[in-house]
Amino acid sequence: MSFRSRLSEFLDRASTRNAITGVILFNAFVLGLETSETIMAEAGTLIRALDIACLSVFVIEILAKLIAHGGRFFRSGWNIFDFVIVGLSLVPGSQTLSVLRALRILRVLRVVSVMPRLRRVVEGFLTALPGMASVFLLMTLIFYIGAVMATKLFGMGCPACTPEQAALFEEWFGTLGRSAYSLFQIMTLESWSMGIVRPVMEVYPYAWAFFVPFILVTTFAVVNLVVGLIVNSMQDAHAEEANAATDSYRDQVLQRLEAIERRLGEK
Amino acid sequence: MSFRSRLSEFLDRASTRNAITGVILFNAFVLGLETSETIMAEAGTLIRALDIACLSVFVIEILAKLIAHGGRFFRSGWNIFDFVIVGLSLVPGSQTLSVLRALRILRVLRVVSVMPRLRRVVEGFLTALPGMASVFLLMTLIFYIGAVMATKLFGMGCPACTPEQAALFEEWFGTLGRSAYSLFQIMTLESWSMGIVRPVMEVYPYAWAFFVPFILVTTFAVVNLVVGLIVNSMQDAHAEEANAATDSYRDQVLQRLEAIERRLGEK
Amino acid sequence: MSFRSRLSEFLDRASTRNAITGVILFNAFVLGLETSETIMAEAGTLIRALDIACLSVFVIEILAKLIAHGGRFFRSGWNIFDFVIVGLSLVPGSQTLSVLRALRILRVLRVVSVMPRLRRVVEGFLTALPGMASVFLLMTLIFYIGAVMATKLFGMGCPACTPEQAALFEEWFGTLGRSAYSLFQIMTLESWSMGIVRPVMEVYPYAWAFFVPFILVTTFAVVNLVVGLIVNSMQDAHAEEANAATDSYRDQVLQRLEAIERRLGEK
Amino acid sequence: MSFRSRLSEFLDRASTRNAITGVILFNAFVLGLETSETIMAEAGTLIRALDIACLSVFVIEILAKLIAHGGRFFRSGWNIFDFVIVGLSLVPGSQTLSVLRALRILRVLRVVSVMPRLRRVVEGFLTALPGMASVFLLMTLIFYIGAVMATKLFGMGCPACTPEQAALFEEWFGTLGRSAYSLFQIMTLESWSMGIVRPVMEVYPYAWAFFVPFILVTTFAVVNLVVGLIVNSMQDAHAEEANAATDSYRDQVLQRLEAIERRLGEK
Repeated sequence: MSFRSRLSEFLDRASTRNAITGVILFNAFVLGLETSETIMAEAGTLIRALDIACLSVFVIEILAKLIAHGGRFFRSGWNIFDFVIVGLSLVPGSQTLSVLRALRILRVLRVVSVMPRLRRVVEGFLTALPGMASVFLLMTLIFYIGAVMATKLFGMGCPACTPEQAALFEEWFGTLGRSAYSLFQIMTLESWSMGIVRPVMEVYPYAWAFFVPFILVTTFAVVNLVVGLIVNSMQDAHAEEANAATDSYRDQVLQRLEAIERRLGEK
Repeated sequence: MSFRSRLSEFLDRASTRNAITGVILFNAFVLGLETSETIMAEAGTLIRALDIACLSVFVIEILAKLIAHGGRFFRSGWNIFDFVIVGLSLVPGSQTLSVLRALRILRVLRVVSVMPRLRRVVEGFLTALPGMASVFLLMTLIFYIGAVMATKLFGMGCPACTPEQAALFEEWFGTLGRSAYSLFQIMTLESWSMGIVRPVMEVYPYAWAFFVPFILVTTFAVVNLVVGLIVNSMQDAHAEEANAATDSYRDQVLQRLEAIERRLGEK
Repeated sequence: MSFRSRLSEFLDRASTRNAITGVILFNAFVLGLETSETIMAEAGTLIRALDIACLSVFVIEILAKLIAHGGRFFRSGWNIFDFVIVGLSLVPGSQTLSVLRALRILRVLRVVSVMPRLRRVVEGFLTALPGMASVFLLMTLIFYIGAVMATKLFGMGCPACTPEQAALFEEWFGTLGRSAYSLFQIMTLESWSMGIVRPVMEVYPYAWAFFVPFILVTTFAVVNLVVGLIVNSMQDAHAEEANAATDSYRDQVLQRLEAIERRLGEK
Repeated sequence: MSFRSRLSEFLDRASTRNAITGVILFNAFVLGLETSETIMAEAGTLIRALDIACLSVFVIEILAKLIAHGGRFFRSGWNIFDFVIVGLSLVPGSQTLSVLRALRILRVLRVVSVMPRLRRVVEGFLTALPGMASVFLLMTLIFYIGAVMATKLFGMGCPACTPEQAALFEEWFGTLGRSAYSLFQIMTLESWSMGIVRPVMEVYPYAWAFFVPFILVTTFAVVNLVVGLIVNSMQDAHAEEANAATDSYRDQVLQRLEAIERRLGEK
């Protein structure tokens, strides 16, 4: 047995997996401690050292996997996922840029790639996505059209506004991006009326004719997404469960009928 | 082959469709640029020219379709849809009225009529509507009754109110239209209590006896709409999938049984 | 043919029904006009007269039905519904009490009892209710327990509060009824955190330990209600559709098998 | 018949159960009265005495059950539930600590363990939970990662902030716990934009890139939980209903076919 296959066998062992899971959860705990300023003031050096130790384990594990599997390593989406997440923590600037430092906690997501049960849940989520691609495309279209319209109608200067109103409208609908964000907020129904549409209606009394249909259309699209998800899951579940029993029964019936016909023909 | 059938064949080609799709997406991009004041200040003439070029392509395409298909053109809902959307951009006043100018972005919706996948999604949405007509009618009824009651109860003068309260109640429930809008907001549960019902209850302590049942009834009606949608989609999906296999199996069994009976009769 | 049966036949005619539906819709329109102060100032007498005319038609219709059907009239829930709604408008004080006057618009609900399609939708809603009785009972229990706890924990005096906080807590949780209303608001997720729980947490830092579980439990119960509704509708739909075809097929197969066995036995 | 079996038979009688249910509901009513300060001022002693009387009945009932069933008592989850709830009211400090006093109302939950219909609903809820364990685990993970990131990004000092902003950010994201609470609020979509994300974006303009994906991911996970619940309930309902009829039919067909074959073989 070659070194590579022995390494591969070692990495696949349940005990190795459990050890790695343990290290990930311990790392999650350590990264959680980093959010406490009092703990960091007292034991910051230790905590940083523990974090580096955990990271080293992950780097060694990934290197071992790379050696064991060679080029096949990158054929699995989960391996690439691990590689990117661990790689992110090794980017040199990561100690200075606070965003990169915050992203290190994403390492905890490795729990998903290590625990088969969580892997299956996430894979279930991902397989549901392609079936919703058309509706997503439609939603993107609606949002783009809505954002352009909102910007042109409410965000490009307002002669009849008070300065306060003009500032608010500029903040909500001043650019395409701001309009898209505001429309996302409106789609989630958060403060859509008291916070946004009523103030807009003080200047443009017919603004509801834009926002109410927008809410109805996007809500309807979201409901259709959920309905599609339900129907798909149901069909999968149904197909798996019912068909095994049904198919074997049907085969039996047809075989027997054939046998009877054959016998009758023989005579 | 006549000129009309050659034109029709040219319009149906995949390459023609793709070119039109490209022009639509490019037009969407151009109309998006129009929302940026800095870009318009620098290259406004170019952008307007590009927009007119795109519009010309659409007009020519529709004229070509009209020539190719003649009167049959208006038999397809999607053709009428394209015709109206493009026609809207040609209304003379469209350069001055800001609302009409904002409506030009609706042209991007032509992507839906050009891409068969999006067409099917929208057609799926539309076929779901007639089945919900009764519930919609009921909702309209509930909203009309609710709006009349709210206007009469809270919107027609309030002797016990402070001037600020009177102004708010006038704004929320002063006319049928305002009441309907406020009830729509309440149905979406946006700020219904802190924003509207609690202030109303300061003057009319039993206002909850109107609003809480209204919320329960409309929410229940919406849930029933969604349930109806799910059941319909499920049945369609179920019918398509299961029945082909089942029907062929059943036909086979019945034919074989008939054959056996016939043979037994022959003897 | 007796007078009563001729009357009954007249009332059941499609044209009579349509006429009544027309009167109801006209009455709805008239009652809607009453919400406009300018219209009432100009044509108030006419509008009130039209309303009384409509009401008279309803009273005559119900009297005719009472004569035609006698005691059987009250066996139909819809007849009782019509009787109560119309009776409500005849209560003497109804011209002075604004609440009773507002309730007159409920007459428009008669459209539901007159149009078979709407009747079926409402009957569908009502048949769904008994199946949800247990969950409703449980929700009532949770609300009662939650209201008692909230009142005792946050509503009965607060020595550590500022006067403003004490007034707010008194308004939100001062009595069982106020607590129940606030919990209903929290269940609908309206301003639950920024509006209520965060201010409460300023005084009672562990208040989240009461409110977050309350939200989780009630939301989960509501989701279960909806799931139950979906499953029931689906089973009804499924049973109706599939079984007719399946049953006839199964009967056919079993009959043919019996016939074959009989023939084989004869020989 | 031994004393223990006679006691057990007495406790299982419908009349005993109904009496206990009555005492529970009466106790609920009494505990509700305790929330009214005016009633307590007038009849506080009586109400406290009635509460103690009810509690005594529960203690005696549980002691009787303990005697009747012995060690088997603790094998039923519902018995343990009753035992803990009643035990909680006997903790000595319960008269002084207001939280413990508020917890006494939980005794009303005993209605669930006494009424079989409610028991079944709750058991239905509980059986749904294990199937959702993986998604719950994933949600915990997402919340933990989100809380760590939010604390590091927005909660650990903000040099560019005004003092008011710094205080708000400290309140929202100052510790892991506060971040988790704020993220829960954001997941319920309550004031997520106007209340939290817009103020944060004034200092960190790219904050939406953290919060919008967080909303999308958690909402999608919640939708998947609900979909899973629907599919499970549907399968259970489907399996129960359809299979009895189908199985008996299939058995019949196969038996008959076998019989026919046997007869043909005999000849």
